[in-house]
Amino acid sequence: MNRFAIGADLGGTNLRLAAIEENGRLIEKVVLEVRSLGHRDAAVEALCQNARVLARKHGGGRQFAGLGAGIPGILDAGAGILRQSPNLPGWENFAVREALQSRLEAAIALDNDANAAALGETWLGAGRTVASLCLLTLGTGIGGGLVLDGKVWRGFLGMAGEVGHIGVRENGEPCGCGSRGCLETEASATAVVRKARQLLAAEKSPALAERIRSGSSLTAELVYQLAQEGDAACRDLFASVGRFLGLGLSMLVNTLNLPLYLLGGGMAEAWPLFAPALLEELGRRSYVFAQGGTRVERAQLGADAGLYGAAALVLRQPA
Amino acid sequence: MNRFAIGADLGGTNLRLAAIEENGRLIEKVVLEVRSLGHRDAAVEALCQNARVLARKHGGGRQFAGLGAGIPGILDAGAGILRQSPNLPGWENFAVREALQSRLEAAIALDNDANAAALGETWLGAGRTVASLCLLTLGTGIGGGLVLDGKVWRGFLGMAGEVGHIGVRENGEPCGCGSRGCLETEASATAVVRKARQLLAAEKSPALAERIRSGSSLTAELVYQLAQEGDAACRDLFASVGRFLGLGLSMLVNTLNLPLYLLGGGMAEAWPLFAPALLEELGRRSYVFAQGGTRVERAQLGADAGLYGAAALVLRQPA
Repeated sequence: MNRFAIGADLGGTNLRLAAIEENGRLIEKVVLEVRSLGHRDAAVEALCQNARVLARKHGGGRQFAGLGAGIPGILDAGAGILRQSPNLPGWENFAVREALQSRLEAAIALDNDANAAALGETWLGAGRTVASLCLLTLGTGIGGGLVLDGKVWRGFLGMAGEVGHIGVRENGEPCGCGSRGCLETEASATAVVRKARQLLAAEKSPALAERIRSGSSLTAELVYQLAQEGDAACRDLFASVGRFLGLGLSMLVNTLNLPLYLLGGGMAEAWPLFAPALLEELGRRSYVFAQGGTRVERAQLGADAGLYGAAALVLRQPA
Repeated sequence: MNRFAIGADLGGTNLRLAAIEENGRLIEKVVLEVRSLGHRDAAVEALCQNARVLARKHGGGRQFAGLGAGIPGILDAGAGILRQSPNLPGWENFAVREALQSRLEAAIALDNDANAAALGETWLGAGRTVASLCLLTLGTGIGGGLVLDGKVWRGFLGMAGEVGHIGVRENGEPCGCGSRGCLETEASATAVVRKARQLLAAEKSPALAERIRSGSSLTAELVYQLAQEGDAACRDLFASVGRFLGLGLSMLVNTLNLPLYLLGGGMAEAWPLFAPALLEELGRRSYVFAQGGTRVERAQLGADAGLYGAAALVLRQPA
């Protein structure tokens, strides 16, 4: 009998759930707005309620293996407790597993959302052919997940994969983490907006200034559009993002020597704009990369990576 | 019956062998000068000859488990082929395992020398209480080895653990690896000598200048002595080494979240001089470290770490 699991991906904006078969087929997906769910316990209740409905609906002729959930923040996966969670106010030190277990008669598996996404890409995405990879998620911040020999590498505090806080500039901008010059302060969507603001202040991009005057908001997306339209300053900006990504990746490549590094998240859309500078810098900075064989590619599953990975926690991870 | 193995550690200067029991007891150690052994095949022959003698001598009442060897350079541990080896001229693309196997009727296990040292520290040294650690070996260069969940992490090309080539200065000194501003160019014994030369040129350390005038060679050891005697410029030099070590470690701490990072090699003698700056910088740069729990300590086994680790490759590593 075919096994299936419910994968859940809890983000700051959306709670997404999907019923996913052992063979990787996504049967049904549900997306809820987190804000509409109310406080923590109501959100947990909604998650379980929807999981129950999906499990019942698709359980005919299939064996239900359980619920896997990807949660943003610092998770003690062993104890099932969310230690910190900047994007989910009120969830600090919350015993997530216990809360889910008390509402669902099913196996429960939890992981950090970035780890779940990395596992999803390993199972069904760009990492299908490898056992080990590192996924960098480029968004408002930069997160990451490591899969080593098929298993998520969590670290002893559940804090592994914080690749956004690799230092790339000795005296760079202050970062929210307390350090400065982190990869996140140079290559996230937030960094793109900051750099674009500097372009405006220095009057380096008339096209960007024109768009702002005519009412556009200053977003990474807008800078990306202008770069695509050929604006030299905006193109240079993405090349700078690429160089810092290359520098950050060089440290991962030299220390971990994985076969594959994936870039996902919204900012990965700009891949054609930053990849040439990234690969050039990486070749210059890492003799391990220069040996050949190491791949740096775009992630393939988009926002669904976390759903697949969450289901994989139940369907495929050894205990 | 007690099992034992021969651990061998082949360096640029010495070939060391030891008979080591399963319980960690070193029964006998032999040290040979590599230069006196002649070319590659003669060195392999000497290694096997000494291993045979040790195995026979201590085999009474003990079960001989085989030979483990730590080899400097880039080793394809699966194939048993040494791909590159800057410190062993003529050993490039040498089928080491085959050469050993054809001369010894015993199980053979090979690893990179830095990996073997990391494994040795995990078994019997400063890492006895943890399953995962990273060892940084501070010498002429900076090498490293990773043990994750009790197993050496080699990387898909056998190049993992190249922590000496983590970038710590965007526009630092050129490094032998082709990059610039690597940890090795800022925190190795070679870096100490370069920085000391700069002190001399800038007339910043009269005491150092006096020692050189009276015939001392400019070595990291000399700079260490002067720092210990209170010379301010030499003390600052080691503080700078500590800051760069802290910066380099912050990337490992943030991405791997291991419970323990060890510093070994000759330069680790200067621990009291660089550790305060190291820990301060690490606390500032890594919020994972700032959470508490992560330990940074001196390695404990010195030059024997590689011997113990090599023996452990046979006695303790799962296939």
